[in-house]
This record gives sequence, C-alpha cells and structure tokens, in this order.
Amino acid sequence: MRESSVVVRPEAKDSGWYSAASRLQAAGLHEAITLFEQAAEVVPIPRSPRPIVIVDYGAGTGHNSVLPICAAISVLRKRTRPEHSVLVTHTDVPENDFTALFRTLSEDPDSYLKRDPASFGSAVGRSYYSQILPSNSVNLAWSSWALHWLSRVPMPVGDHLLAAYSGDAAVRTAYAKQAAHDWHEFVAFRGRELSPGGRLVVMAMGVDGDGELGFQPLVTALVDTLADLVAAGVLTDEERQAMSIPIVGRSAKDFESPFAPSGTFEKLSIARMELFEAEDRFWKQYRSDGKARVLGAQWAAFTRSALFPTLSWALDPNREQPVSVFFDELQKGIAARIEADPVQIRIPLAQLVIEKRAD
Amino acid sequence: MRESSVVVRPEAKDSGWYSAASRLQAAGLHEAITLFEQAAEVVPIPRSPRPIVIVDYGAGTGHNSVLPICAAISVLRKRTRPEHSVLVTHTDVPENDFTALFRTLSEDPDSYLKRDPASFGSAVGRSYYSQILPSNSVNLAWSSWALHWLSRVPMPVGDHLLAAYSGDAAVRTAYAKQAAHDWHEFVAFRGRELSPGGRLVVMAMGVDGDGELGFQPLVTALVDTLADLVAAGVLTDEERQAMSIPIVGRSAKDFESPFAPSGTFEKLSIARMELFEAEDRFWKQYRSDGKARVLGAQWAAFTRSALFPTLSWALDPNREQPVSVFFDELQKGIAARIEADPVQIRIPLAQLVIEKRAD
Repeated sequence: MRESSVVVRPEAKDSGWYSAASRLQAAGLHEAITLFEQAAEVVPIPRSPRPIVIVDYGAGTGHNSVLPICAAISVLRKRTRPEHSVLVTHTDVPENDFTALFRTLSEDPDSYLKRDPASFGSAVGRSYYSQILPSNSVNLAWSSWALHWLSRVPMPVGDHLLAAYSGDAAVRTAYAKQAAHDWHEFVAFRGRELSPGGRLVVMAMGVDGDGELGFQPLVTALVDTLADLVAAGVLTDEERQAMSIPIVGRSAKDFESPFAPSGTFEKLSIARMELFEAEDRFWKQYRSDGKARVLGAQWAAFTRSALFPTLSWALDPNREQPVSVFFDELQKGIAARIEADPVQIRIPLAQLVIEKRAD
Repeated sequence: MRESSVVVRPEAKDSGWYSAASRLQAAGLHEAITLFEQAAEVVPIPRSPRPIVIVDYGAGTGHNSVLPICAAISVLRKRTRPEHSVLVTHTDVPENDFTALFRTLSEDPDSYLKRDPASFGSAVGRSYYSQILPSNSVNLAWSSWALHWLSRVPMPVGDHLLAAYSGDAAVRTAYAKQAAHDWHEFVAFRGRELSPGGRLVVMAMGVDGDGELGFQPLVTALVDTLADLVAAGVLTDEERQAMSIPIVGRSAKDFESPFAPSGTFEKLSIARMELFEAEDRFWKQYRSDGKARVLGAQWAAFTRSALFPTLSWALDPNREQPVSVFFDELQKGIAARIEADPVQIRIPLAQLVIEKRAD
C-alpha cells in the first residue's frame, strides 16, 4: 500500500506560479512547518561529530518535505556550528520511486542539499508500520500527507470509492478499525525510534466539524466521471468495482486514542494537536480571476497525481487501451465537471506534535 | 555512469547451485569477506544507543553485499549486545533500482534484516565521487565490484569496447588518467566519512602479472558477436561504434598513488593490499563435467547481467526491434563461441583494506 501522497508538485520556475510559499500553501503546510520549526528549536541535539538525525516518514518524491526540512535545518543551524552534520532519512514503501526522490534531493532548488553543505540525505524503503530505524536515534521527525493511507484494504467498499462515503456500516467500521490499528502501530514504532526529548510533527487528513472527510465535490466529480467512462467503454464494470481509495480522515479522538487514558504511550505524548481546514488555493484564485476553466484544470491535475495511480491498480493488466487514455479521459471529465459547477473544496486537515519524554 | 555491477545474482534455492558459499565464490568475494570480518573485529565502535554504521559503496541490487555485511555483523555481535543497533547504508547513483535493493534487503534469505533484529538498512542515491555521508560517521565500509567503473567516459575508444584493449595510446592514457582521478576522489571523500579508526574494504578489478585486465576470451566473444550482429542487421554500425564499456583494472601502484609518497592521505593508509586471480568457477565445473554448453551459457548469462545494460545505452532510441532481441542474440552468440572453444577465463582482482588513523 502507499505511504505517501503526491501533493506538492514541482512547478516550473517561470510558470508564474512558482514560489516556495505557494508550494506550502498548496498543501496546507504553512502551519505544520511552523510547528516543525518550533520543535527544531527545542529538541535535544547530539554534540558534533554525531549527526543530528531528521526523519521524513512517507516521503514519496520528496516534494512535500524538502521545504519543511530546510526550515528545520535553518533553525538547527542557529543552535550549532555550520559543519555539524545533519542526516535526513526519507522513508517510503519499497515500491516508491526512490530515483525520483534522490533527484528531488539533488536538483530541487528548495532541497536542503542545495542549501546546507553539512546536510546529507538517505532513504529507507520499508513500511513505517514496523521499526525501521535504530532505537533512540531520531531527533526530529516529520510526516506530511501520508498517514491517511491505510496499511491495507480491510474489505471492498462496494458502493463507493471511499469508505467514508459508503452507506454500509460494516465497511465504515472495518475501515475505522484499520485506521485505529495503523495509527497505534505508527505511534508505537516511532516511540522506539525517537531519541529522548525528540519530537515528531504529523500532518494528515482530518475530519471537519461534522466528522466529514471533505473533498466532496471533487470525489463526486471523480465518481461520476468513472460512471461515464464505464458507459463509454473506456473502463469495464469489473475494473470500476475493483477500485478503491483506502484513505481515512481522523478526528481528534482518533489521534488521541493510543495515548488514552493516561496521555502517554511508549514514553510519547501529544504536545499539540489542531484540526483545521486548509485554504483552497485554487478557489481563492478563481474568486479573484473568475476562470472556472483554470479551477477545473487545477483540481483535475491535483487528483490525477494524488489518486489516479491508486485507481490504476484495479485496471485489467491485459486491457487493450493504454492506461494513459483512461487517465486523460478521467482528468478531462473531472475538469469539465468542476468547471461547470465551480465550488469551494473543504480540506480538513490535522496537525500534531508528538514528544518523547526526555530521560 | 554506473557505480555497481550485477555480479552476484540470486539463484533459486532449488536450482542445485544455490548456497551462500557459491554466491561468494562466484564473485571472488571469499577473501575479501575474511578481510571485512577482520576489520569488524578491530574497528572502534560507538557505545549503544549510538548505532554502529556500516556503509556499502556501489550497492546495485544489494546481492553482492548482503553476505559480507551479515558476516561483519556476526563479528560485531560478539563485541556488543544483541540490541545495539547496526545501521547499514547502501549507496549507488540516483538511477539505480532502489526498489530492487530494498526488496533484496527484505526478501533475500541471506539479508542481515532477516538475520539480525537490531540491524537496519538505508540507501543513499548519490555518486560516491563526493561526500555523501556525515563526516567521521562511518565505522566500517565495504565496496565490491564497483570501483572499476569510471565516473565518465573520457573519450571514445574507437577501435575496441574497452580502452584496455585499444591500440590507441591516447585512449589508454586518457582512461588511465580518469582512473587515477576517480580513485583519488573516492579515497579522499571516504577519508572524510570514515570515523577515526574506521576501515574500508575494497574489492574491484585489478590487472594480472602482465598488467592485463583479464576476461580476454569473454571480451573477444563479445566483440566478435557484435560484429556478427552488425553484419546480420540486428545492430547498426553507428550503434556498434557508440558502444563502450568504461571499465578499468588497476595495478598495485595505481591503488597506492593517492597515498604516495608518505603512505598516508586524508588520515588514511593502506593496511593491506592483494592482487590475485579469482577462481573461474564455471571452468572448474566444466573440468569436472565436460559440459561446454553449460560453460558457454553461464558466461553468457554473466555477461548479459554485468555488461549488456551498459552496451544498451548506445542503441538508437528509435530502433524498430526491441532491445531484448539484441540482448538475446548477443547472449546466444557469446554462449556459442565459448562452447565452441572452451577456455579458462582469467579474473584478476584487487582487494584492499584502508584504515583511518584513530584520533
């Protein structure tokens, strides 16, 4: 299963959209990066030559994390000498495109490797639902846009792509149980890996005030377009039925569960937690320029990079049409639907700071 | 450019050939692994919870290195507690197949992850011709079947695939200069990364007593088959001309060069160096069973995995025939030539132990 999302994408420097700030805004990362900087100010750090260890859990291509990690390193640099090594480790499942990740680290203008000569990057290609780094070795940890992916599909959803929108109570229960188990495991293993006093900042999908996952108009556009594509013969009914997106949003109570009732778990406690709604940057732009076509195109492009790869797992490997045709048609349909009925997308997110007790 | 060779390949457990020992023999690694174990006995190691750091430079798929690293960890375990973490980092260029590497680490029966519960694996996707790990952080380092690949092609060879067999003195000089530069750079950067008292074991292609690279009958079979394939239209003359294998074998003097004249360089010195000829395991088997067909097939399969990918860089990207046809024909031709004229292959190798001064 996936342990990362493609959310922050590289934009050409001359595209008119590019800036470090826009990359963060796009992904609701502004607040989380501030929390990460604050953590970098206070975590105990080893004395040189022992490297300061930063871990990025669920890194994907690295585009979601290079800026936050740069920001943390800048803060750490005020606390230590320029030559004190910082070792950054990015984790993801073995199937992740690590060549893309290493290219991001060496080529992205916002990469710490470009900015800090005593920083070093590495990767671990193993699921974070086990201990994958030495005990007590991680000073500072980050995870963004990753933990809403479940470690496995507990059961087929049947009536929807997302369990959250299923009418079947058994489906919703199975997914909630899996989500609780995954979060518990993730926290437990980080409890071993974090060094005493170390901190972990998590940003993932939350739920809104009504307990909803958000993204509804986008999900509706996706589901409706898939139905069109079945009708048009681009997709078979079997392929459509096999599709699911094993994503969950978690509530404050869900995040607190492993720590209940004492507030501590594996020497860890939640130092801070916020559920909030990220700005729909595409909507903001639309409100200013009125270009519904651009709004549709932007959300459709986002959906393509964030979700289409997961949908493609359900495709018949012997299908005649290339996958790109399906992707292109699906993206076109989503863009057209959003253009026809422009609406703001609610993006409920959660951010947490988890702290390990100093010995 | 490449920084690793596929030399040790997985063999099915039920193939009749599989054993840990056969994997090592196949690659001339028996002696080098002993040196690595001896290094593991004496290098200073940090106190728990600081992990012991082992680095594998030029890892490729990991198949050349899982056994040596397991052996070193076994030795280290006699010196420290079972729960003292060992962090292994495998390096290669960004284009390496890191998914294959991480799969080897998690699935290969000889992987340290299978054998030692306090061991952890990671990867760095950057060329080792720069500093890619924190200063003074590496306790024990390994590099096998990697350093004979040059960092760049200094000039086209023209009259051969390998500069070593070129009749053009300018070509041989340019390659020797590049080889000297690469080795100097490799050693210099490892000098920064090794921790005081740390040791690096290197195994790479050497030269024989006559200063020859070895592998002659195999190289001849390869060159002759390529000529046949041009004649048969499987390959164009332009593609053949563009092919080169930027590999060098080094002499004892070449390896000593960065350390001359004082014997130390960047706090490093050569603790031990041997140039030797590895056993031609396929020949040994042929001498026992007389099966020339098997001999040809084994060397051809070796050549395919070790060298064909490099040759394929020269192929016209718009060629009509799939690359696999070229590979199949080339492999078939090499096998037939060796079968027709069975001969022992000389495999000159070099192994070194390089030590960093303890502070």
